[in-house]
Amino acid sequence: MSSADHSSPESNQGAGKEILEEFNAKVGQKVEVETIDGFVTTGLLIPRYEHADSEYIVLKLKSGYNMGLKAGNIKRIRVVEAQASVPKVESHPIAKNSGKKNLLLFSTGGTIASRVDYRTGAVYPALSAQDLYAAIPELDDIASIDPEVVFSVFSENMGPKQWQLLSEKIVQRSNEKTPHGIVVMIGTDTLAYVSAALSFSMIGLGIPVVLVGAQRSTDRPSSDGALNLKAAATFAVESHMPGVFVAMHENENDDYIAVHSGVRVRKNHTSRRDAFESIDIPLVARIRENQITKNSAEEVKTRKISDSVKFKTKFEEKVSLVKFHPGFDLSILDYLKSDRKVKGIIIEGSGLGHVSSAAVARISELTKNGVFVGITSQCIWGHVDLNVYETGRDMINAGATPLENMIAETAFAKLSWALGNFDNIREIMLTNVVGEFTPRIPLSQD
Amino acid sequence: MSSADHSSPESNQGAGKEILEEFNAKVGQKVEVETIDGFVTTGLLIPRYEHADSEYIVLKLKSGYNMGLKAGNIKRIRVVEAQASVPKVESHPIAKNSGKKNLLLFSTGGTIASRVDYRTGAVYPALSAQDLYAAIPELDDIASIDPEVVFSVFSENMGPKQWQLLSEKIVQRSNEKTPHGIVVMIGTDTLAYVSAALSFSMIGLGIPVVLVGAQRSTDRPSSDGALNLKAAATFAVESHMPGVFVAMHENENDDYIAVHSGVRVRKNHTSRRDAFESIDIPLVARIRENQITKNSAEEVKTRKISDSVKFKTKFEEKVSLVKFHPGFDLSILDYLKSDRKVKGIIIEGSGLGHVSSAAVARISELTKNGVFVGITSQCIWGHVDLNVYETGRDMINAGATPLENMIAETAFAKLSWALGNFDNIREIMLTNVVGEFTPRIPLSQD
Repeated sequence: MSSADHSSPESNQGAGKEILEEFNAKVGQKVEVETIDGFVTTGLLIPRYEHADSEYIVLKLKSGYNMGLKAGNIKRIRVVEAQASVPKVESHPIAKNSGKKNLLLFSTGGTIASRVDYRTGAVYPALSAQDLYAAIPELDDIASIDPEVVFSVFSENMGPKQWQLLSEKIVQRSNEKTPHGIVVMIGTDTLAYVSAALSFSMIGLGIPVVLVGAQRSTDRPSSDGALNLKAAATFAVESHMPGVFVAMHENENDDYIAVHSGVRVRKNHTSRRDAFESIDIPLVARIRENQITKNSAEEVKTRKISDSVKFKTKFEEKVSLVKFHPGFDLSILDYLKSDRKVKGIIIEGSGLGHVSSAAVARISELTKNGVFVGITSQCIWGHVDLNVYETGRDMINAGATPLENMIAETAFAKLSWALGNFDNIREIMLTNVVGEFTPRIPLSQD
Repeated sequence: MSSADHSSPESNQGAGKEILEEFNAKVGQKVEVETIDGFVTTGLLIPRYEHADSEYIVLKLKSGYNMGLKAGNIKRIRVVEAQASVPKVESHPIAKNSGKKNLLLFSTGGTIASRVDYRTGAVYPALSAQDLYAAIPELDDIASIDPEVVFSVFSENMGPKQWQLLSEKIVQRSNEKTPHGIVVMIGTDTLAYVSAALSFSMIGLGIPVVLVGAQRSTDRPSSDGALNLKAAATFAVESHMPGVFVAMHENENDDYIAVHSGVRVRKNHTSRRDAFESIDIPLVARIRENQITKNSAEEVKTRKISDSVKFKTKFEEKVSLVKFHPGFDLSILDYLKSDRKVKGIIIEGSGLGHVSSAAVARISELTKNGVFVGITSQCIWGHVDLNVYETGRDMINAGATPLENMIAETAFAKLSWALGNFDNIREIMLTNVVGEFTPRIPLSQD
């Protein structure tokens, strides 16, 4: 996904093509369209994709989304702008050693470092950290920024291998530059997995590492990228909170940016700007303009972290995350063990962490063969508990390890990290290393 | 999981055993325990399970949860009740043909039809529909109830085979009895999958079918079972809304019971009584005592349902639900196709429904071989959209079918139903049969 899709403008054909010709409108132009029932909308005329109906024309709206309009329903088309302008990124000198705090800004790709190809409507990763820094000059008021492109991919293409590469790069550059804080720009699809992974691999760094993304690309008016990035930079250099965090919109307005714990955050909506939520805990902080308000209920926990877990940047690839479901094909577990030689599996059980009774024997086979089996819940919120029902107790006897209320994504990343760096996997998985477990709600109220 | 775990009371040994002997307390008794730091708690003394530490004694608290107390920290134990009373279920004559509305009450197992074995602390499915009806005499004021046990399992052991059995049983008994409404008692672990399954297989029944469960067994003071069941029965006979619904606590208080659409509901907490939430839509109704308040914004949609989808009660077992994750092992898709001969797969993609670029070729292989591949999002809330990014468009070209905002659990159940009864799978999956899709948020606001 590192190149744009340059669909041919010729792909507007059929009735769609005819109506464009009738009103002398062309792909790439900003047009106003009125339908026969009086609906008026403005957008950028983009080509249909091959699979689309030739009866339609497609507009890219201000929101960034595409709208198909049936040719037969169109009353008129008016060209508003013959050639839609592409925002120009100005070159901007990068200030250094000006007495300001130092921030390392890493770019890995994703929407925040993307732009729309105005001819095709495709979003692709293109802006470098330098470009973004140049596009958002206010960053210069926040810190002295040292930008670097690590790679340029959408986050669904990042796995343990990329997590390790990114971790090693951050440690290496931090040693060279001794920054006050670090910001990592990343795609939102697997941002929460990566924030969990870095939460473990960055132990020992002693400074804030803030992951930030965007749900809309930066050249859209509705983009959340600039505000998220400024807040992330502010938190990185001003909060004095070591650890890994995620900074994204707290609501749909452009006012508050939420700071989440890197191990307790999840993307809970496909498209909203406030898609990210802290699970089972309050926000770490919120940011408005350059003001950081830390959550007073969440005082900075000075967790004792043993030297043995510091700067462990390896990630094991032979790990799986499996969601249990009704009629789940148990043989998948055997396949993962025998054919794929996985070293660990995180199971998203149902309810308190259950699998079917028939699955228990397979778990036993896995653990007898040295495969770590960790149990989380697909409910997302709340603690697993394998002591309430008989199935759960059977699962424990079969060697499964219940993982408190660690969210599945965090458990997966932690297991990859544990297997990459340690031998005492079960002990590591059951240790609350960086706040990946939170206390159970008091029993009397539950 | 159909039998109780009758652990031997002898399993209290070591320091735990000694302290019990010191204070002359026995398993099965209600005791008050004071620790050396002054913490006082009351509960039922239950045996430890084999894997537990012999240094501890275990109390089952009023909340239904177990608490381990280290023998060395215990100051004193006082026996409150020498033999804890087991609530007695009174025999209760079942009223029939009394002029009241007729309700069919099916029991399938789960916590709502469970009780705690007071000697062991184990929860097991035991109460029959008859027992429950007898235990909650107020049900008699709501309707003339015809109870029946279909089977007795925890819901994590229910799959497409049980969905089909249950569907056939409901249709058969409805034909015999012509009830005004139906209530199905079921375990909460996979309740949302089953409510989705029945939403499709019960089309044509024309009466309310209400699924109901409990997060605490009915012999606990904190049980939610009775209130949920009364509300479910009320909605079933009084709402006049055909369709499949779920009735569970709306909040942690014992006041409002929420009624959810059977295809838009999810268990979002492992243990809270209000664990079930409607996704992307408001509640269908709420119930307080015997008052039903329908959501006025959600007027009863008289959806046109073609006869061709009525009373289709078969479910295909060769279906899978797969969660995509970073470093996802693509060979699992090949294995499901070649070795397991699955006929359809629902993929929980990331973000707007993405998988890694490398996975696209595998999807193409699947669809070329006639395997249906439906795309949902692990974000849970919001619509998938494979038109925004290049990966998504590649997925469409590979034959994947994006499923709007159908939640993954519903998509899985619908696919099992579609494959069990029809040939035009893609058409069925893209048709909004019973409200499994809801409208997208208007583009301008998104």
